[in-house]
Amino acid sequence: MIRTLEGGLDLVEGLRASACRVGIKAQGLDLALVVCDEAASVAGVFTTSSLPAAPVVVSRKHLVQGRCRAVLINSGNANAGTGPPGEQDARACAQAVAEVLGCPAQEVLLMSTGLIGVRLPLEPILEAIPGLVASASAEGFQAAAEAILTTDTRPKTAAVEWSTGGQTFRLGGMAKGAGMIAPHMATMLAVLATDARADSPYLEDALRRAVERTFNRITVDGDLSTNDSVFLLATGKSQAPALEGSASQAFFEALEELCRSLARQIVLDGEGSTRLASITVARAESEAQALKIAQSVARSLLFKTALFGGDPNWGRVLAAVGAARETIDPEKLDITYAGVPVFRSGRPVEDLPLDELRQKAQAQEVSILIDLQMGSAEATVLTTDLSVEYVRFNAHYTT
Amino acid sequence: MIRTLEGGLDLVEGLRASACRVGIKAQGLDLALVVCDEAASVAGVFTTSSLPAAPVVVSRKHLVQGRCRAVLINSGNANAGTGPPGEQDARACAQAVAEVLGCPAQEVLLMSTGLIGVRLPLEPILEAIPGLVASASAEGFQAAAEAILTTDTRPKTAAVEWSTGGQTFRLGGMAKGAGMIAPHMATMLAVLATDARADSPYLEDALRRAVERTFNRITVDGDLSTNDSVFLLATGKSQAPALEGSASQAFFEALEELCRSLARQIVLDGEGSTRLASITVARAESEAQALKIAQSVARSLLFKTALFGGDPNWGRVLAAVGAARETIDPEKLDITYAGVPVFRSGRPVEDLPLDELRQKAQAQEVSILIDLQMGSAEATVLTTDLSVEYVRFNAHYTT
Repeated sequence: MIRTLEGGLDLVEGLRASACRVGIKAQGLDLALVVCDEAASVAGVFTTSSLPAAPVVVSRKHLVQGRCRAVLINSGNANAGTGPPGEQDARACAQAVAEVLGCPAQEVLLMSTGLIGVRLPLEPILEAIPGLVASASAEGFQAAAEAILTTDTRPKTAAVEWSTGGQTFRLGGMAKGAGMIAPHMATMLAVLATDARADSPYLEDALRRAVERTFNRITVDGDLSTNDSVFLLATGKSQAPALEGSASQAFFEALEELCRSLARQIVLDGEGSTRLASITVARAESEAQALKIAQSVARSLLFKTALFGGDPNWGRVLAAVGAARETIDPEKLDITYAGVPVFRSGRPVEDLPLDELRQKAQAQEVSILIDLQMGSAEATVLTTDLSVEYVRFNAHYTT
Repeated sequence: MIRTLEGGLDLVEGLRASACRVGIKAQGLDLALVVCDEAASVAGVFTTSSLPAAPVVVSRKHLVQGRCRAVLINSGNANAGTGPPGEQDARACAQAVAEVLGCPAQEVLLMSTGLIGVRLPLEPILEAIPGLVASASAEGFQAAAEAILTTDTRPKTAAVEWSTGGQTFRLGGMAKGAGMIAPHMATMLAVLATDARADSPYLEDALRRAVERTFNRITVDGDLSTNDSVFLLATGKSQAPALEGSASQAFFEALEELCRSLARQIVLDGEGSTRLASITVARAESEAQALKIAQSVARSLLFKTALFGGDPNWGRVLAAVGAARETIDPEKLDITYAGVPVFRSGRPVEDLPLDELRQKAQAQEVSILIDLQMGSAEATVLTTDLSVEYVRFNAHYTT
C-alpha cells in the first residue's frame, strides 16, 4: 500500500526551500528555510528537557495557533542556555521571516542545533532572511537538508506515497542527527510534510504516535538534547477531503514508515559507530514492558562495548534485562544472539556453537531477540556500538 | 566523634577469615570465608535486578532468620543466569559450610562475582570448604579481601571507631567493585561488621539508609549487576546494651562513614578511568530531586567523555540537568565547573576565564556544583570519566 519514493520534502506540493551560509559553523551552509505557499496546518513534538532551548520555547508558543508559513533552521548554535536574551533573539528571527512573508510571527517556527551557551550571531541571520525568502524554490530542498547538519556525514531525507479511497497522498521529510557521535549537538531535528488535508490536533495525535514508535526507539547516546524538535506540516494541496476513518489508518502507517526511515538513517550515521544492533523484546505483557527492557539493553555500556568488540557476550544482555527491573519469569526467558539460541527457558544453551556465534556477532548488524513468553506485546529498539572513536571524538571536541 | 582506623573486618571482635584458590579464576585466590565465633545478627541489601543470581536468591531466603555464622564468597563466576541448577549449587555450598560449622544452613550467606551463564565448579569448592573453615583466623582478612576481587586492582577495606555513652564501638568492612571498568563483573560486594549489639531489623534499617547515601551514589557504568550484595553483621562482642537513642545516631553516622570510604575506593579503582568527578546539586526542593539531577549528569556519556578529555564543556552539564526532566526554574540556575562560575541565574557568565577553567578541568578530581536556588536539599554523586581504555577493555574481554 505504501510506496517508498526517492526524495524528501521536494515531493510534497505546496512547499519551497532555500539555504545559505551566514558563518555560524566553521564552514558550509548553516541557515535553512522551508516556506509554504499558503499557511499549512502544523503540529510539533519537542524535547522533554526541563531546560529547553529558546527556539523550542518560542515554537511551542507559536504552535498554539496550529498554522505555519515557514520553518527557519540554523545549525552551529543551539541557542540553548542563553536565557531571556536568547529568547529575544529567537523571536527576532521569527519576526524577520514573518515581515518578509507578510504573515503573523506565530506562523513562523524555529529550530536550532549546535553549541550550547553562546548567543546567536543575530545580525548576519537577520540580514540573510530576505534573500532566503526570495530564493526559496522547488529546487532548494537539497541545500536545506545539508544546511541543518552538524556532525552528520550526510543529509537524511525520505518520502512515501500511498493511495486510499481513490486518492493518492504523499509524505516527505528531512532530518538531522548523528548516531552515537555528537558532541554537544546530539540534537535530533526533523521537518515532515504531507499534501493531505488535516487539522492541527489531528496531526499532533498522529505525530506523537509515530515519534513514539520510531525516533523514540533509537538510542543515540541516551542523552536528551535541549533542542530536539519534530514538525509535521499538512499543506492540503491534494484537494482531497480531510483525513478520517480508513484514510486515517493509511496515513498513520505512512507517517510511521517515513519516520522509521529517517530514524534508521540517524542511527546509521554515527561516525564513531561501527556496528548496529536491533534489540527486540517479544511476547511481553505490554508494549511498555517490552520497550523498557529493550532500552535497558540498548543503553547498557557493557553491551555496547561488547558489540563494538564483536563479542557475543550474552551475559551482558541478561544482566541488562534484569536491570530493567520488570517483573518477568526467569524460567521462561529465551535469548537469541545474532540468530543463535544462547539461553532457553532460564538456562544457558548447552553445546553452544561458539565459533558460529562469534562469527555472526561480527556482522554489520546484529539482532538480539529477548522472548519473555508472557504475552503478545513486542518492541524493537535500534542502537549502535560504543567505540573507541566515539570517546576520542567527544573527549577532544573543544569548548 | 568518629575515628578512622587502619584496617577492616579484622578490627571487629568475634570474626575470623580465610581464603584459598580453587581454580575458578585464571589465577589468584578465588574463595573466601568470613566466620563468626557465635551467630551474629545480620541484614542484607541486594541488587534490584529482576534476574538476581543464585547466591542472591538463596541468601535472601536465609536472611529471613536474621542470623549468620559465615559468609562464603567466590570470585570468577557469578552463578547468574544458571537457572534452578545454579540455585542447587548455591544451596550445596551453604550446606557444606553449615555441616562443618555445625550450624543450620540458613546461617550461611553467599556472594558470587564473575562470569554470567556458567555453572560453578562445585566439586573443588566443596572440597575446599573444610580447610577454609579450619584455617579461618584473625590473620585471614587480608587474603579474604583479595580473594573477592575480579578486575579490581587492589583490595578495599575500611574501619571506624566511635564512642557514645562511655562505650567504644567499631565497624569494619571489605568490598569489591571496580569503577568504570568491569566486564561482566560490574558487581559490587561488601561485607560489613560491628561489635555493637543490634537485632536484624535494626541493622536492615541502618544498612538501607547508609547504602542509599553511599554505594547508591557512585555511578560505575550505570549497569545494575545480577549479584550486587551488601551484608552487615553485628557480633555484639562489645557487651554494651543494644543500640538505641543517641547511640543509634552515632552508629548511623559511623556506618555511613564506613560505606562512604568503601564506595570512594570503588570509584577510584576504575582501571580505565583517568579522572573523578563529584557532582553536587544544592538548594533543591528535595533530596530525591537533587539526586535525580546529579545522576543524570553523572551518567551522561557526553559529560563523561568531556571529563576524560579535560574539556570544561559546561553545556553538556546543562543539557544533562535538563534531561533529568525535573521541574526547575531556569532563571535561578547556577553552574560552577571546577570552582569556576560558568552559568549564573540562567545565563552564561560573561568574560569567562577560559584559560583558568581549562586548566582546572584537567585536575585529577573535578567538582561540579549545580545550584537550583529552590530549597535546602542537597545530594552528591561520584563518577569517573569514560575513557578510550574503558571501551578497549570491555570490547575485547572475551566471552
